[in-house]
Amino acid sequence: MKIRRLFIFLALIAACFYFVEGIAEAGGNLPGDPTGAGERTGKSQVPIDFIWLMYCASIVLFMKAGVCFFGGFLRQKNMLNFSTHVFMDSCSGSMAFWFIGGAFLLGGSELAAGYEHGNWFMGTSGFMNVGRAYDITNVTFWVFNCVFCTISVSFIACAVAERMKLVPYIIVSAVFCGWIYPVFGHWVWGGGWLAHLPFGSGVWDFSGSSIVHMQGGIVAWVGAIVVGPRIGKFGKDGKPRFFKPHNVFYGYIGIIILWFGWFGFNPGATLLGTDLRLTIVCINTFLAAASAATTMFFLSIAMTGKVNIAQVCVATLGGLAAITCSCAFIPVWAAVIVGVIAALCYRGGKYLMDWVFKIDDPLDSVAVHVWSGMWGVLSLGIFADGSYEGVRGILYGDAGQLLAQFICVCASAAWAFANGFALFLILKYTCGVRVTKEQEEMGLDQAYHGVDAYPGRAHEEGEAA
Amino acid sequence: MKIRRLFIFLALIAACFYFVEGIAEAGGNLPGDPTGAGERTGKSQVPIDFIWLMYCASIVLFMKAGVCFFGGFLRQKNMLNFSTHVFMDSCSGSMAFWFIGGAFLLGGSELAAGYEHGNWFMGTSGFMNVGRAYDITNVTFWVFNCVFCTISVSFIACAVAERMKLVPYIIVSAVFCGWIYPVFGHWVWGGGWLAHLPFGSGVWDFSGSSIVHMQGGIVAWVGAIVVGPRIGKFGKDGKPRFFKPHNVFYGYIGIIILWFGWFGFNPGATLLGTDLRLTIVCINTFLAAASAATTMFFLSIAMTGKVNIAQVCVATLGGLAAITCSCAFIPVWAAVIVGVIAALCYRGGKYLMDWVFKIDDPLDSVAVHVWSGMWGVLSLGIFADGSYEGVRGILYGDAGQLLAQFICVCASAAWAFANGFALFLILKYTCGVRVTKEQEEMGLDQAYHGVDAYPGRAHEEGEAA
Amino acid sequence: MKIRRLFIFLALIAACFYFVEGIAEAGGNLPGDPTGAGERTGKSQVPIDFIWLMYCASIVLFMKAGVCFFGGFLRQKNMLNFSTHVFMDSCSGSMAFWFIGGAFLLGGSELAAGYEHGNWFMGTSGFMNVGRAYDITNVTFWVFNCVFCTISVSFIACAVAERMKLVPYIIVSAVFCGWIYPVFGHWVWGGGWLAHLPFGSGVWDFSGSSIVHMQGGIVAWVGAIVVGPRIGKFGKDGKPRFFKPHNVFYGYIGIIILWFGWFGFNPGATLLGTDLRLTIVCINTFLAAASAATTMFFLSIAMTGKVNIAQVCVATLGGLAAITCSCAFIPVWAAVIVGVIAALCYRGGKYLMDWVFKIDDPLDSVAVHVWSGMWGVLSLGIFADGSYEGVRGILYGDAGQLLAQFICVCASAAWAFANGFALFLILKYTCGVRVTKEQEEMGLDQAYHGVDAYPGRAHEEGEAA
Repeated sequence: MKIRRLFIFLALIAACFYFVEGIAEAGGNLPGDPTGAGERTGKSQVPIDFIWLMYCASIVLFMKAGVCFFGGFLRQKNMLNFSTHVFMDSCSGSMAFWFIGGAFLLGGSELAAGYEHGNWFMGTSGFMNVGRAYDITNVTFWVFNCVFCTISVSFIACAVAERMKLVPYIIVSAVFCGWIYPVFGHWVWGGGWLAHLPFGSGVWDFSGSSIVHMQGGIVAWVGAIVVGPRIGKFGKDGKPRFFKPHNVFYGYIGIIILWFGWFGFNPGATLLGTDLRLTIVCINTFLAAASAATTMFFLSIAMTGKVNIAQVCVATLGGLAAITCSCAFIPVWAAVIVGVIAALCYRGGKYLMDWVFKIDDPLDSVAVHVWSGMWGVLSLGIFADGSYEGVRGILYGDAGQLLAQFICVCASAAWAFANGFALFLILKYTCGVRVTKEQEEMGLDQAYHGVDAYPGRAHEEGEAA
Repeated sequence: MKIRRLFIFLALIAACFYFVEGIAEAGGNLPGDPTGAGERTGKSQVPIDFIWLMYCASIVLFMKAGVCFFGGFLRQKNMLNFSTHVFMDSCSGSMAFWFIGGAFLLGGSELAAGYEHGNWFMGTSGFMNVGRAYDITNVTFWVFNCVFCTISVSFIACAVAERMKLVPYIIVSAVFCGWIYPVFGHWVWGGGWLAHLPFGSGVWDFSGSSIVHMQGGIVAWVGAIVVGPRIGKFGKDGKPRFFKPHNVFYGYIGIIILWFGWFGFNPGATLLGTDLRLTIVCINTFLAAASAATTMFFLSIAMTGKVNIAQVCVATLGGLAAITCSCAFIPVWAAVIVGVIAALCYRGGKYLMDWVFKIDDPLDSVAVHVWSGMWGVLSLGIFADGSYEGVRGILYGDAGQLLAQFICVCASAAWAFANGFALFLILKYTCGVRVTKEQEEMGLDQAYHGVDAYPGRAHEEGEAA
Repeated sequence: MKIRRLFIFLALIAACFYFVEGIAEAGGNLPGDPTGAGERTGKSQVPIDFIWLMYCASIVLFMKAGVCFFGGFLRQKNMLNFSTHVFMDSCSGSMAFWFIGGAFLLGGSELAAGYEHGNWFMGTSGFMNVGRAYDITNVTFWVFNCVFCTISVSFIACAVAERMKLVPYIIVSAVFCGWIYPVFGHWVWGGGWLAHLPFGSGVWDFSGSSIVHMQGGIVAWVGAIVVGPRIGKFGKDGKPRFFKPHNVFYGYIGIIILWFGWFGFNPGATLLGTDLRLTIVCINTFLAAASAATTMFFLSIAMTGKVNIAQVCVATLGGLAAITCSCAFIPVWAAVIVGVIAALCYRGGKYLMDWVFKIDDPLDSVAVHVWSGMWGVLSLGIFADGSYEGVRGILYGDAGQLLAQFICVCASAAWAFANGFALFLILKYTCGVRVTKEQEEMGLDQAYHGVDAYPGRAHEEGEAA
């Protein structure tokens, strides 16, 4: 089994070096502008764009704490292992994004020095921020996109939580950050084929409902299928069973952190602090979350007489996932409607996953990121009012935009399903993806880390190191 | 009882529509400037003002996590219910603020397109950010004021915690965000009568000690009176009894988050990132918190020989609540003094509430927000040194300013008491405000949410969904 | 013993007043510019620099929450006391920094009005932000430097946790913030002798590996020596023993908050939002943390077959501590290497502390801040590529820079050891630094605060106040 692991690792390295050849050409003796001397004097870029993006990137990084707190909805015995997945996505995942992902995503977009080369399918320059890509503008976009990508991959961690092996997860994380996400992202954000569709204004996805949410969400779906349900999730009658969360309070902290982070996630996607549309982005993001939460709050009371806190928290996330695509393009009242429908999409998606598809998704990752996210991509094609970039939805006279958005949804799903299955099946038949029954019952914290999440007063007397 | 609820709901809706008529006029065929094209070319507003306000708004939103962590000073069995109050303030509360509150607060201030109409009492334009109010500047101010308002309402949640019914609380939250807070806010910030008092320079309240803190704090006081003390809070001898907090550590996390958030709360109230006085605001805010905490730390040691952590945390909040009004107007040394006295005001206010008024205020919300807040409003009339907006306190020669601030305190208290009592008494005699004895003893988490805050390892085996 | 305490206090006050005399001269009738009117019209400073620094300062303040969460690696019975140390560093510590520290650090740097006077050893103007130091630029630098200093002092809290007396710790905190840190900081940042060394470009330490990390870390080392190991830390055979953490999950939250905060800590040290090199700082900071974490993750698996979460979290911190010095000067690929080596330095340093020096450092404060920090200071002398401020390391042709950095390490260690020992030994032989055996076994939360960190459901019935 160790040999298999080694083989996979070597194959990955080899693939990397193939692309890294690009560095020689791109980087040679054409240095970028790491000091920004050029920027300061002539170009239209101003410092405000840089500090805006760095501020946004930083609070998106902080969203990781919110995702970790969402682990409160898992069982206590797996809390640390889940958090390890989420944390390592930012670490080993960003190493992969640095090595190849950033270049695949942004190469050819011509957003900055070092990102000159790319084609309709993928970028081919800007690897590892060396040579011309050692440039103040280049690294700004890299950091901002890296934190996006490493959030997206954590949606997979949510869906495979409590039962996936650790190192295979790290490989999934690296491949997602280095290949799956960047290539699809290139199609929309990097000047790839979706951005140039001849319908409407081509596909628009402001902060990435189809990229961040659907790529992460669909690979999460695939992961949940391949890894299989947790022991005891489905009873002998085939009906889903419910594991009580171990810390419900963490759900509120998690969603507040995520909501906060979305103030960097969405408005930051203007890429320019001087694009004043960012304020419309802020209010739309804020109101979609609020309306989704309010909808779920009253729906929960109406359905059960009590307020299901987990569902209120996750529905808020659904509102945020949906508005991510359309936030810059739609009027304020439409954002409220997007939020309301996103909450219903999440709740419906959760029902489908539990009762129809019978797939075990511990943190409703798929329901939120795929179903609410898909609604978000389409919502742009409905409500866009033409006040930004001239994009109009079907309500404002352009049915073509809705078609473009629909194609985007299909392409996103197809790419993520295809790559996700390939990746998870290769892992399943080489190093395996599922922990043993003993490990699962013991809890992955003990199995992989030899420690409980909250030992509390146990063992205060000390033991041999 | 359900009929009563319905009636109230309909009455609210009717009231809303009455005012929303204003939209037709304001919004008709006079669109705002949602793209900011006008801003970019001619006006004095610059992007820095927008990103500054959006940054500040985002960390004020994050303060909600701090308020939730303060729930650690409650009993464990009510943690989730308290957090639900706090979270829904940001959701259903901001819906009410979007529907009517923002227009009542800012209409007539002429701060932005859509806010043209208003009078000495309230604003009458800018509802729901449609029409002319669909404008980049307008929505910026809306978002910033919305997060302020939805923090203020959570002070009520603190005072009625552990014993108030859930849906009536949501109604209180909506009425506060849609009516009580916006109208008083209009008096000071929206060009209402207090701003034009003929004493000193008229009332000045930089970030809202009399608005955010006193409005929230006094309605909280009313709520605590009407809802009544928790079972067992006062012994048979009438003496207050003390419920042990369930998580003291959360207090530190809460106050650090709140302190952090105040770096958006106070300096953001310049409304302009280009108003460089914001740096004086930052240092004053920082030092008032530090001096209040230090004062309470040593006072606590002097009084009991131990350090009472809850009181140190809440006293820090008192320092912040006080400096909120005067932060931009006073010299640095005065901020230290404001903090010291704010800590004493809090401690004295707590004594009054517990031993003299015998009102049960689980998180010392009234002591902090009313007593320290009131001191803050007056402190501006004492220490303002004329270096900002020409405002001088009595120490620098203008006794009239102190008089204006005193009138502001009285008006704030009168408005909040009158509206608070009307609201809570209507609710008390229609749908009721107090949970049953059984629910209170069981804990509101089980009663309203059917789950404990921290189930931990319980029920790990799963149960029927 | 009380008399001794009084004596120390009076001596400190006397020393303060000596220096505060400077105010009369500096402050007299030469006011600063608290409104910024001058800034807005003529000077090169622009608002963006101010909001950038205030944003950075605010998230550095928030890092305190991260440090508190690191207390999860301690035993539960001391959690509150540790958090009190950390919190009071920001309160009483910043009072000391306001009183004298800021002036000692920045006086003579001529960065702003009020900071005109100083010499090679220390600054002598700008006390208490009065007079000319009541100026928008002055207070901006003060706030930014204050949050740095009050983070640094908390590294001492980490090393003396679970066994140091409370009030002596507060004295250490005040002396560190008022004297030890500012004076050494002046040597590098305030125009002191290290900044003008005739080797390379003189010492450069961008955000303070030698200042924030090494000063705090070495005084922490001294503290750990003087206070002595916790009962039971070393077995009868002299081998170190291991106390189980009480909450491992908090480690992840802590490190994510700290990582987030470093987005203010390092790029803020440009002191100018218009110095676009800050984007290179961001990517280098980000990647050093990621590579350090990834290194420790795989190292941990290789060494033990399991992932030691505490070590992964602390190694990430090591990567951040190291890159703090060199982040602005080195290319991106070098930042990855700095992170990898920092993780090894931390792990080696921890081995030395535990097994060779046999010093009890509960949170590996010394291993991270001294060993990784020292590597960081030297790394600038190796990898600096000349693209910023013309600073070149030995790889780019300037061996003198490495010599300068080496001298900086030695000076930092010498100053901190000398002052640290003087301070701790004076305290030891006057008021004592170590709690009693009974207190230590009972836990400091009960001993000093009379309450547990997490009482949970205990005592819900209330008790006499």
